[in-house]
Amino acid sequence: MLTYDLTERAGAPLYEYLYRCLRRDILSGKLAAGERLPGRRSFAEHLGVSPVTVDAAYSQLVAEGCVEARPRRGYFVAALALPDAAAEPPPTPGRPEPERRWRLDLRSNRVDASLFPVGTWAKLTRRVLSEDPEALLRSVPHQGLYELREAIAGYLRGYKGLSVRAGQVVLGAGAEFLYLMLAQLFRGAALAVEDPGYPQIRRCYLGSGAECIPVALDAQGVDPAALRASGAAVLHISPAHQYPTGLVTPMPRRQELLHWAESNGGYIIEDDYDSELAFTPRPLPTLSGIDRAGRVIYMNTFSQTIAPGLRAGFLVLPERLLPLWRERLGFYSSAVPSLEQHVLARFISGGFYERHLARLRKTCRERRVAVLAAFRASAFAGRIDIREPGAGLHFLMRVDTALADEELRARAEARGVRLAFLSDYAARPGGAPEHVLVINYAGLGGEKLGEAVEALEGIIN
Amino acid sequence: MLTYDLTERAGAPLYEYLYRCLRRDILSGKLAAGERLPGRRSFAEHLGVSPVTVDAAYSQLVAEGCVEARPRRGYFVAALALPDAAAEPPPTPGRPEPERRWRLDLRSNRVDASLFPVGTWAKLTRRVLSEDPEALLRSVPHQGLYELREAIAGYLRGYKGLSVRAGQVVLGAGAEFLYLMLAQLFRGAALAVEDPGYPQIRRCYLGSGAECIPVALDAQGVDPAALRASGAAVLHISPAHQYPTGLVTPMPRRQELLHWAESNGGYIIEDDYDSELAFTPRPLPTLSGIDRAGRVIYMNTFSQTIAPGLRAGFLVLPERLLPLWRERLGFYSSAVPSLEQHVLARFISGGFYERHLARLRKTCRERRVAVLAAFRASAFAGRIDIREPGAGLHFLMRVDTALADEELRARAEARGVRLAFLSDYAARPGGAPEHVLVINYAGLGGEKLGEAVEALEGIIN
Repeated sequence: MLTYDLTERAGAPLYEYLYRCLRRDILSGKLAAGERLPGRRSFAEHLGVSPVTVDAAYSQLVAEGCVEARPRRGYFVAALALPDAAAEPPPTPGRPEPERRWRLDLRSNRVDASLFPVGTWAKLTRRVLSEDPEALLRSVPHQGLYELREAIAGYLRGYKGLSVRAGQVVLGAGAEFLYLMLAQLFRGAALAVEDPGYPQIRRCYLGSGAECIPVALDAQGVDPAALRASGAAVLHISPAHQYPTGLVTPMPRRQELLHWAESNGGYIIEDDYDSELAFTPRPLPTLSGIDRAGRVIYMNTFSQTIAPGLRAGFLVLPERLLPLWRERLGFYSSAVPSLEQHVLARFISGGFYERHLARLRKTCRERRVAVLAAFRASAFAGRIDIREPGAGLHFLMRVDTALADEELRARAEARGVRLAFLSDYAARPGGAPEHVLVINYAGLGGEKLGEAVEALEGIIN
Repeated sequence: MLTYDLTERAGAPLYEYLYRCLRRDILSGKLAAGERLPGRRSFAEHLGVSPVTVDAAYSQLVAEGCVEARPRRGYFVAALALPDAAAEPPPTPGRPEPERRWRLDLRSNRVDASLFPVGTWAKLTRRVLSEDPEALLRSVPHQGLYELREAIAGYLRGYKGLSVRAGQVVLGAGAEFLYLMLAQLFRGAALAVEDPGYPQIRRCYLGSGAECIPVALDAQGVDPAALRASGAAVLHISPAHQYPTGLVTPMPRRQELLHWAESNGGYIIEDDYDSELAFTPRPLPTLSGIDRAGRVIYMNTFSQTIAPGLRAGFLVLPERLLPLWRERLGFYSSAVPSLEQHVLARFISGGFYERHLARLRKTCRERRVAVLAAFRASAFAGRIDIREPGAGLHFLMRVDTALADEELRARAEARGVRLAFLSDYAARPGGAPEHVLVINYAGLGGEKLGEAVEALEGIIN
């Protein structure tokens, strides 16, 4: 007869342990389909337990469908067709996936973490957790914690001259999450994006099932004729400092794009991703700031100014879009953790964010000057042409070379250097010229700059 | 001549202040299109500044397109077509949006926050920030912090008997975010969901542009015939404890669904949302645990066991899906903040999570017993029929009443009570019977239970 050592049950109730033993053997096939289980009385006697214990175990197995009770005949192992064990390879033991570590990464902008006042953030975190411990657990409203939205609105009113109230602000878990939300807000509409442009925007929109149309740029930004021809109802742009071209869209073009939106009943998503770091000269007013018709959605994140690891960004919706937003997206929970929202609210409203931005701007400005000077004094100075509109954390550098971009990239990667080319950002084949590097210089502080110059000398020459 | 009080510039450089004054007046229309600006020398003299200051301000305005420089004629205000100022209402002053506060909410499960060891969480947060301050800022890999994925995999190996390695785990900012990712993973495939079911699942899939087919349930869960007829390639289910019906899918049906996936080359998303709180009897093995063919994606969150405000959930992908995941979704940044991932990793690997779960299970078990006893001793006991499969945080309660669900709801809301009806969760009209309440009892501790009984007496009788 079936035997289980019930002394090994480690504190579990007898019936439960017995049930688990039986189930294990049924699922493994050790007890075959159709096999009759021992009668309750004799099994109980054999195991030295009460028949009630066996009853309880059998009942549970019957309830789960692992055993069939046939009236007056007893209990039988059910016919459980086990899936083929061969198809899926067993998991290999854990080890972190190797990630490519770059000696030098000119493709992404990561300002040194040492500039961020981690101590202040830690202090504010401790303060929230001691003053209001349940802030960690309480859900925040769909659009985000009110205090945070008010802090963001206050910042935008004071530093961008935007006329914003907290009720227009929606928090999201970073830019990509916000793109996914916008795709749902504008479901059914075709979205125009800049070409060349930031590929994540296209990928998020396409992944959300949206129609996404790359629109060519001229010297002032999105070309209105191409925009009209696209048939798009929504335009996603970065007029303050386009990525990767660095274009700053001048006022008349901004007005023209606003007119397009108004006369077509369309909308413009103004992705202001790096405008906090536009240091010289003063940035133009945002589209959102000159929009009187409620046609512009302003969007920004804290990824460039604090860290991408924070995963916090926000939209400012025009009043007219709030009802549609609530209808289509109001069911989502706020995707940013509550605790982080409380801490970020205090970080902004306490003035720490502004102070950090001032330091950051100063560092970036100095870094830019140093990078430009070093490149112009380098051995490859005669073979480059730097286009430098004085905003944001990157600039374009045309290289006089016979090598194709892919050859340059291979030479760079062999040196542990990651490069970005303008051609990487084109949505359509040939949508951007070759031989133009996008230099993301935020990380080129201290000795990194010397390393970069040396590496580029080896790659370009 | 134009006059600005340059003493009001509050520390800004003279040229910049002048430029901003001019721009403000151009954009507001105070300086009309075509108007000639004062000559640089006379304007400088008039304002008491150097001509260089006026030059700098004018140059900036020209660069931005707000002013045109006409050779040998001077500077003119550009023709900026200002949008109509009437269309968008000005924002109203800030005030938190009123949110409906329920005296009693039987629609959502919120265990008292007092059960969670906030002090431990705070201590771990402080420790991360002091031992590794840059953890706040460093980006984590796309799938999430390795240490956290390893902690989750270890938990699943130890407590669910799942054979999981960290490389299969993907973190996401809560269940809804993971639904959006899954919709992108299975782009082009029709997804079947349970009907009745959790409406957020349908809404997320539909919002992502996926085809989403509600499939009827029989007494064991998803009906295989209806599933086959749906033509879906992917099935999203909660076999451990379906929401809202409370159905536990028995083993033979689980096997049948696995077979469906294998023979169709399909996949099953196993949403195990509340299985940590299935307390009596022991839960069945997960679909993922008996899947040998790599056809099941396991999914869970910390929303029920810690708090929805944490916004953290995860998927376990079968090995065979990892390449497709990387191709379609590998470009996304991890949507959970880095700091939170570090703290959660320590919370799980330090054994704090298990201890918390044990306390939580005990409380929920006691609460369930108390709620059932109180309902059965109530004045409405003779008019209810409770269906109670002994898993998770809710049960169904059929009410013998002539009132329609909407009438019951109105009576409840008049008392500040939020009810959930089975019929609320039907995707198709008539997809669920009336008069069945979904009782989410996790919040009914202490005096809340007495309040609930009293309120239900008033509503039902």
